Amino acid sequence: MMSTQPARGMRDFLPEDVRRRDYVVGVIREVYDRYGFEPIETPAAENIETLLGKYGEEGNKLVFKILKRGEHEASGQADLALRYDLTVPFARVVAEYQARLPKVFKRYQIQPVWRADRPARGRFREFYQCDIDEIGSSSLLVEVELLAAASEVLERLGFSDFSIRINHRRLLAQMLSLSGLPEDRHAAALVIIDKLDKVGRENVIAELVGVTTANVNAAKMLEMFLLDDVLTNEQKLQRLHRHFERSLVEPDALQELARILELSRQTSAGRHLRLDPSLARGLSYYTGTIMEITVPDLPGSLGGGGRYDNLIGMFLGSQVPACGFSLGLERILVVMHDRGMFPASVDRSFVEVVVAALDEAAQSAALETATELRRSGTLRVDLYPDVAKKMERIFKYVDQRHARFIAVLGSNEVANGTVSIRDVSTRKQESIARGELARYIASSVN
Amino acid sequence: MMSTQPARGMRDFLPEDVRRRDYVVGVIREVYDRYGFEPIETPAAENIETLLGKYGEEGNKLVFKILKRGEHEASGQADLALRYDLTVPFARVVAEYQARLPKVFKRYQIQPVWRADRPARGRFREFYQCDIDEIGSSSLLVEVELLAAASEVLERLGFSDFSIRINHRRLLAQMLSLSGLPEDRHAAALVIIDKLDKVGRENVIAELVGVTTANVNAAKMLEMFLLDDVLTNEQKLQRLHRHFERSLVEPDALQELARILELSRQTSAGRHLRLDPSLARGLSYYTGTIMEITVPDLPGSLGGGGRYDNLIGMFLGSQVPACGFSLGLERILVVMHDRGMFPASVDRSFVEVVVAALDEAAQSAALETATELRRSGTLRVDLYPDVAKKMERIFKYVDQRHARFIAVLGSNEVANGTVSIRDVSTRKQESIARGELARYIASSVN
Repeated sequence: MMSTQPARGMRDFLPEDVRRRDYVVGVIREVYDRYGFEPIETPAAENIETLLGKYGEEGNKLVFKILKRGEHEASGQADLALRYDLTVPFARVVAEYQARLPKVFKRYQIQPVWRADRPARGRFREFYQCDIDEIGSSSLLVEVELLAAASEVLERLGFSDFSIRINHRRLLAQMLSLSGLPEDRHAAALVIIDKLDKVGRENVIAELVGVTTANVNAAKMLEMFLLDDVLTNEQKLQRLHRHFERSLVEPDALQELARILELSRQTSAGRHLRLDPSLARGLSYYTGTIMEITVPDLPGSLGGGGRYDNLIGMFLGSQVPACGFSLGLERILVVMHDRGMFPASVDRSFVEVVVAALDEAAQSAALETATELRRSGTLRVDLYPDVAKKMERIFKYVDQRHARFIAVLGSNEVANGTVSIRDVSTRKQESIARGELARYIASSVN
Repeated sequence: MMSTQPARGMRDFLPEDVRRRDYVVGVIREVYDRYGFEPIETPAAENIETLLGKYGEEGNKLVFKILKRGEHEASGQADLALRYDLTVPFARVVAEYQARLPKVFKRYQIQPVWRADRPARGRFREFYQCDIDEIGSSSLLVEVELLAAASEVLERLGFSDFSIRINHRRLLAQMLSLSGLPEDRHAAALVIIDKLDKVGRENVIAELVGVTTANVNAAKMLEMFLLDDVLTNEQKLQRLHRHFERSLVEPDALQELARILELSRQTSAGRHLRLDPSLARGLSYYTGTIMEITVPDLPGSLGGGGRYDNLIGMFLGSQVPACGFSLGLERILVVMHDRGMFPASVDRSFVEVVVAALDEAAQSAALETATELRRSGTLRVDLYPDVAKKMERIFKYVDQRHARFIAVLGSNEVANGTVSIRDVSTRKQESIARGELARYIASSVN
């Protein structure tokens, strides 16, 4: 017999799973929409050149590649690859349809991506990203809007204790330069600093010593990045400014961060923002602000994003400023599940009525009844497919469907033009004229 | 520079495309839901053994295969494949979660599938199927319910001229046996008869002569399958019955078809049903009723389905009766596009308000205004990201967003706590207190 399991790291979603996912996606879509973002979608597979070289060396290894077909299949070569994120396909779309898109374009995109990562709790090989991006403007209002929309999504879902950590790629570079580290060693140092959460301060310092030059004090350098979280954002900004006071390095990134923090006070993101100079974020295409949303009870993040002013240029030839934020559907679902945050209505699926025929002769009347009920409005109406030899069978079926009513038709009912209607919750059963049924149920349900 | 096109046969969807797709999917989902079907979803990729051998030889060639990863990539072998339809993954799901699913289970699934077919008008390599299936019952009420739901979807979308062609795999076999054709030649003959629409009667007869035995008159055999469409379904049933009158072959499939036609009179499918003994349908897993929906102005079909009582057994070991119907989203969209069937509201996307700051000092107040408007209810509110040096820039942006109002804030407005609000449709502009803005817009919009 064949295996019946889904592919490794991928999941089947049964009705209760789909309903929870649809609920969260519905809230995300509605908020994105109300913030003026427009939906786009791209294919699951991209030409392989579109993806390779965009995600760094580690990313390249995690791309699922699709074999050439027909006579070329035997070559063992791939010409297509599965979508790895939503940002690179979006950059391609902006370049391809530039003439049809407005200069400033705000899009959202909610689709699955695939990564051949080692599966772990909350880490899957197929997962959904829910992205907003705005292109065509370098204004910091863009960052502020993205953070406001993401915050409003989380608040509407019932989250109140999330933090939005924010930093700036240029601030990272400016702090490293201030420490005396040559630019060609910045990338290596950032990879190490990014591991702070996982390996701890001592290990990071030990590793940093390995990549820094003789004139750099690794421990002192790291101190700049580590600001106590009891400090307010104002206090953190002051401390950072002080580092730059007697240097030739101009901390313009600090001014941008200060402005984002100030403007965000007018939005739902304001009270969640935490300036965090140690935030680095993995993806190589970021050029400015970087941001990440965390909650205390989940390692990793609920979402993240940043400014990437050069990526579209790789497809278009000319630079287009761009900034984006991505919420991870699975991360949100894991926390909502653990905390019991789903409204009861999401988990309770029910049909209002199951219509059942007691014999073959009554099937036509049962169908007619179901059709009438369905036409009457928005009732969810199910038809028991078999001829019920015992009422217990119907009761069991109705129980599984969480139905409120059973409408039964046998030879008596057909002869009299009636239906036997039973309210499952009260066990009250009565015989009513078939033409009255829709009104009877509607008045009981509302 | 890199190519910016999507992969061959696949498509990007810009906002106006997504909105039209979402509208149709929304109607399909709502009807499926109201008929008591429950949603499930499966991964885009399946273990390759799950898919191979299920779709016939032609199907196998069209499956997109995914290369093994890491050290195994160099082998050129595939271990995964992209979903080719929604029926085989559903059969796998039924086998895997049998203990958790009710004995009679009605599911719907709306997801993309991938086939490496030669792209053509309306034929893509990535396309959506919208499936309903009911398992666990051999009752003909199942077929009737599926056809009723599919018909109601099409009627709700505005279709009235579609035909549901219906036939039965066993009737095909019984007619061939009646003609004297040995069973081992049935499959070959059906492949030829299935081409009737494309190659015409004469060519089909010529081809049939090649696969029939000496005692079979191919032309006479084909006559059985070709019933004039001016005949009513009753008349067709009578003609077919007459063929079997003096034979030992029992036409039990005809009785099933007659019952489905009779019961369907009570549903929205009734007036669309056409008995068509020449309908064969390609997929090899069908065992009973087969059905297909067509419209006059589209070659091919809007959807199709049938009973497949053996497929789940391939995964489970024991037989489970099953029947399904699939609507093709792209086919529906093509016809709706050609006929101009989309409601105006689907194509008209707009934001109600664009909030714009005239200088940096007013940005904070502009954000505060946008936040207030968004919190006030369901208004769709956009923020002009840049500092507008000329009002023309804002007007151009607002025009692209199809906005009804522009709310402008400059130094005067900030000082006075007001907003300059302009109704784009009337060009009327006035200054109002910021606290009044939400009410002002809501009353103008409704």
